[in-house]
Amino acid sequence: MSAGGPCGGPVPGDGPVTVLYDKVALIGLGLIAGSMSLAMRRAGLAGSITGYARSAETRAVAVEIGLVDHVCDTAAEAAKDADLVVLCVPVGAMEAMARDIAPVLKPGCTVSDVGSVKRAVIAAVGPHIPEGVHFIPAHPLAGTEHSGPRSGFAELFDNRWCILVPDGADRAATDRLRALWEGMGSFVEEMDADHHDLVLAVTSHTPHLIAYTMVGVADDLQRVTDSEVIKFSAAGFRDFTRIAASDPTMWRDVFLTNKDATLEILGRFTEELFALQRAIRTGDGDHLHAYFTRTRAVRRGIIDAGQDTAAPNFGRTPVPKG
Amino acid sequence: MSAGGPCGGPVPGDGPVTVLYDKVALIGLGLIAGSMSLAMRRAGLAGSITGYARSAETRAVAVEIGLVDHVCDTAAEAAKDADLVVLCVPVGAMEAMARDIAPVLKPGCTVSDVGSVKRAVIAAVGPHIPEGVHFIPAHPLAGTEHSGPRSGFAELFDNRWCILVPDGADRAATDRLRALWEGMGSFVEEMDADHHDLVLAVTSHTPHLIAYTMVGVADDLQRVTDSEVIKFSAAGFRDFTRIAASDPTMWRDVFLTNKDATLEILGRFTEELFALQRAIRTGDGDHLHAYFTRTRAVRRGIIDAGQDTAAPNFGRTPVPKG
Repeated sequence: MSAGGPCGGPVPGDGPVTVLYDKVALIGLGLIAGSMSLAMRRAGLAGSITGYARSAETRAVAVEIGLVDHVCDTAAEAAKDADLVVLCVPVGAMEAMARDIAPVLKPGCTVSDVGSVKRAVIAAVGPHIPEGVHFIPAHPLAGTEHSGPRSGFAELFDNRWCILVPDGADRAATDRLRALWEGMGSFVEEMDADHHDLVLAVTSHTPHLIAYTMVGVADDLQRVTDSEVIKFSAAGFRDFTRIAASDPTMWRDVFLTNKDATLEILGRFTEELFALQRAIRTGDGDHLHAYFTRTRAVRRGIIDAGQDTAAPNFGRTPVPKG
Repeated sequence: MSAGGPCGGPVPGDGPVTVLYDKVALIGLGLIAGSMSLAMRRAGLAGSITGYARSAETRAVAVEIGLVDHVCDTAAEAAKDADLVVLCVPVGAMEAMARDIAPVLKPGCTVSDVGSVKRAVIAAVGPHIPEGVHFIPAHPLAGTEHSGPRSGFAELFDNRWCILVPDGADRAATDRLRALWEGMGSFVEEMDADHHDLVLAVTSHTPHLIAYTMVGVADDLQRVTDSEVIKFSAAGFRDFTRIAASDPTMWRDVFLTNKDATLEILGRFTEELFALQRAIRTGDGDHLHAYFTRTRAVRRGIIDAGQDTAAPNFGRTPVPKG
C-alpha cells in the first residue's frame, strides 16, 4: 500500500493504479454492489467484474447500463475462477448464495460480504466456505434510501467507514481486502462480530426501527390526514421518512438477525423516552433543557469528523417554486 | 392579491412590489425573525423593520450584520407605532413580551407570533391584547438546526407551509397577514389551535423528542464509545443528530406547552414500537416487511408534494476527502 490515503491506503485517482483482484464477482446487484463496481472501476482495482442477481429484471438492467463487465445467470457461474467473491444480498439470502457458490470457489480466493449484521452472516456463510478459501466478512457503513441496480454511484463509500470482521483470517488476505475498501474511498476498521452488531444496533438498526415506527404512526392516525402529514412534514418528520423509505427486505433481515443487540438498545431507548415523557408530564423543564443541550455536542462531533455536512437542513437542494 | 402564486398570492420578485405593512416590529432576532426580515426585504413587503432581542449580544450582531433597519433596546420601543408586531421568541417568553408591548400597541395594528404551539400562545398572549388590535397567531413550518441572529436566510420559507390560527379575527387583517407569508414564499393554511397542536405533535414535536432520546442513549452507552458513534453515524444515526441539535430552550418550551398532544402521539408511538419489538422477538418477518413497505409510500408523497428532495441522502454535499 502506498502512503497518503486514509489509514495509509491509496488515494483514489491519485496514485499508481494497482489491480488488487484479477476477477471480482458480485453476488447481488443492488445499491452496494453497483456502487462497488463503479468505485472499483474508478480506481482500477479489479481486472474484471462479474455479477449475478436473482431477478432477471435486475440482471437485464445491469446489462443495459453496463454496471459490471459480465452478468451471469447463476451465482456459481459468476463466482467461478473469481479471486474475490462479495455477497451483496440481504442477510436472509446469504446462506443460499454461499451454498450455491461453494463448489466452484477457487483455492486461495477470498469470500466477503456487505451485510449489516456480522454474527448471523458468519453463522450462515461460514460453514459453507471450503478449506483454503479466506472468509472475511465486511460491512461498509454507507447507503441511501434508494435501492436496486440503478441506485449505485462511485462516490458512495468516499469518507465512509467500512468495518472488517476478519476473526482470525489470513493477514495478507485481510490486508488486500482492506486495500480494496480504501481504494474505493473508505476508511477501514477491524472489530469482532459481536461488537460490530452492538455498535450498529446503536448507529443504525434502532434509529431505523424508530423512524419506521414514527412514520407508520403518522400514516395511521385518524385525526390527522395523510395530506396534512405530507404538507407539514418539513417541521422535522420528513427526515424520518427518508430512513423509513429504505429497502424493506434488507431491513426485515437486519432485525431478524440482530435481534439481541437491537432489543437491548431498544430497551435503553424506551427507558430514556419514558424519563423524558415523565419530565413533560410533570413539567420538569430543567431536565428537558439539560438533555437537549447535551445532544447538541454529538452533532458537532459528527461534523468535525467529516461524517456529515454542517449546512442547515443537510444543505437540501431548494425545491423549485410552484 | 395578484393571481399566479401559491394559494393565489403574489410570486416573490415576480409581480409589482406591494408594501403590506409600513412598519414591522420583530420581537426576538433568531433564525425565524432574521429569515422574516430578509424575506420581507427580498419582496419589498415592509416599509421599515425594527427588531428587539433580550440579549445585548444578539442585538449587537443584528446591528453589525444589518439584519433589521433599527435595533431597539426594549420590546416596547420596537413595537411602538408598528403596523405589525411579530413575537419571535420561545413560547415560554411570549407572555412577558406581550405584557411589555401591550401599552404601546397602535389601534388597528396586528400582533402575530411564530410559536410552534398555538393553544398555549393564545392563552399566554391573548389576554394582553388591547381592544382594537388584531391578534392572529401564526406558525411557519420551516427551520433548521441552527439558531441565533446569524442563522437566518431569505429562502427559509419558500415552498414551506405557514399555518394561521385566526380564531375569528378580522378577515381583512387575516388576509393581509396571509399575503405577507405568501409574499415571503410560503403556502398558507388556516386551522384551529387544537388541530394545529395535534398535527404538529405528529409532524414535528414527537419526532424531535424521539431524535433527542436516541442521540442521548447513544451518547450515554458504556459499551460503545462516543468516537464509534461519531465515526459510524452515516449508517442512519446522523440524521437524528441534526434534529437533536435544535435550540434547547425553544424545544423545552414546546414540550411543556404542547403536553397533551405530544403525550397522546407518544402513546401511539410506544404502542406501535412495542408491536414491532414483539415481531422482532418472535421472528415475525411478515409483519416487519409489511410495515416497512407501507412507510415507503409516505416518503413518495412528500417528494411529490415538493416538501423534500428526491436526491439520495438529501443530496448531501460530499465531504472533501481526508
